[in-house]
Amino acid sequence: MKILIIGGNGTIGKTVVSHFKTSHDIIIAGRTNADVTVNIEDSKSIQSMFEKTGPLDAIICIAGEAKWDNFNALTEDDYYIGIKSKLMGQVNLVRIGQHFLNNKGSITLSTGILADDPVIKTTSAAMVNGAIHSFVQAVALEIENNIRVNVVSSGMVEAAYDKYKDYFPGHNPIPMTKVVNGYARSVLGKGNGEIIRIYD
Amino acid sequence: MKILIIGGNGTIGKTVVSHFKTSHDIIIAGRTNADVTVNIEDSKSIQSMFEKTGPLDAIICIAGEAKWDNFNALTEDDYYIGIKSKLMGQVNLVRIGQHFLNNKGSITLSTGILADDPVIKTTSAAMVNGAIHSFVQAVALEIENNIRVNVVSSGMVEAAYDKYKDYFPGHNPIPMTKVVNGYARSVLGKGNGEIIRIYD
Repeated sequence: MKILIIGGNGTIGKTVVSHFKTSHDIIIAGRTNADVTVNIEDSKSIQSMFEKTGPLDAIICIAGEAKWDNFNALTEDDYYIGIKSKLMGQVNLVRIGQHFLNNKGSITLSTGILADDPVIKTTSAAMVNGAIHSFVQAVALEIENNIRVNVVSSGMVEAAYDKYKDYFPGHNPIPMTKVVNGYARSVLGKGNGEIIRIYD
Repeated sequence: MKILIIGGNGTIGKTVVSHFKTSHDIIIAGRTNADVTVNIEDSKSIQSMFEKTGPLDAIICIAGEAKWDNFNALTEDDYYIGIKSKLMGQVNLVRIGQHFLNNKGSITLSTGILADDPVIKTTSAAMVNGAIHSFVQAVALEIENNIRVNVVSSGMVEAAYDKYKDYFPGHNPIPMTKVVNGYARSVLGKGNGEIIRIYD
């Protein structure tokens, strides 16, 4: 299977790449130091990435950012950082990427527990995650060529625990093996329109 | 109680106004033919509206649009119609409106069943509704002055059944009295960060 992993050089991305590369042909996309470079905020850059990769069997996105700050500190423009990157970046990956997928291909997006169970400073981050959950359910009703679209929503992953634990009081860190299994379930399973919640 | 109802001239808005006006002081906001005019896509217009209303006890928004179309017909710009109006319009109502609310005031936003149970042509509409659900849960953790923020998410309302029934096969129309009760529960109850689902 030929799999494009956008964000394959990130904390979670590297682990997902390690898992899939044992039995699949992996292309890593990212802003820098990748097989193909992409800026997901720019739909022209997304189009150009897919023209380089050619036909794929699976697309995994583990990329996209949103600004974290106190509600009273976030400006209107700050919300558009997440809207353009993590939200519309992922929507555009589906809009454009579907045309570069083989029949029965899949697209797996990424969000996080904030969509369902936010913490402080995440009015913007929670919002874009929740938006993607509803988008995935909606697009699954319409996407053609037997393509499947799912999203993996993980709790705070083990690898990020030290950095973020103070923002997530009482949250149990999610083992990376469980997170990887979320992506495996989406890519290798048959689900469509699923929000694959990896919470504990 | 002094209540501002944005979209008070719409199909649902009129019924909500009728309910609350028997015991409360109502100000209707809308694009035209309203006590105060507002374009919720424009945060300056929102600021100007609140400067005209002065201090309030409750803000209800039953306004905001998103483009409905087939997934393959929706352009990137089309998504921004809903992002600027129903999504950021409502986020900006909370950002700005909080400063014009009395202590223990409330803000009630509106979404719809598409957030949880989309139909075709709603990849954009479902997305903005889901975004607001997560936003409301997040902002409730941080908003000050004992202000409460909730969202009413209704199924297809009775009053819109004839117009929209073909898009919602098998959905049971929601009686307007139940929808109005959602807004009453938010404004007169004590809930905060609630997604008040009026589904059937």
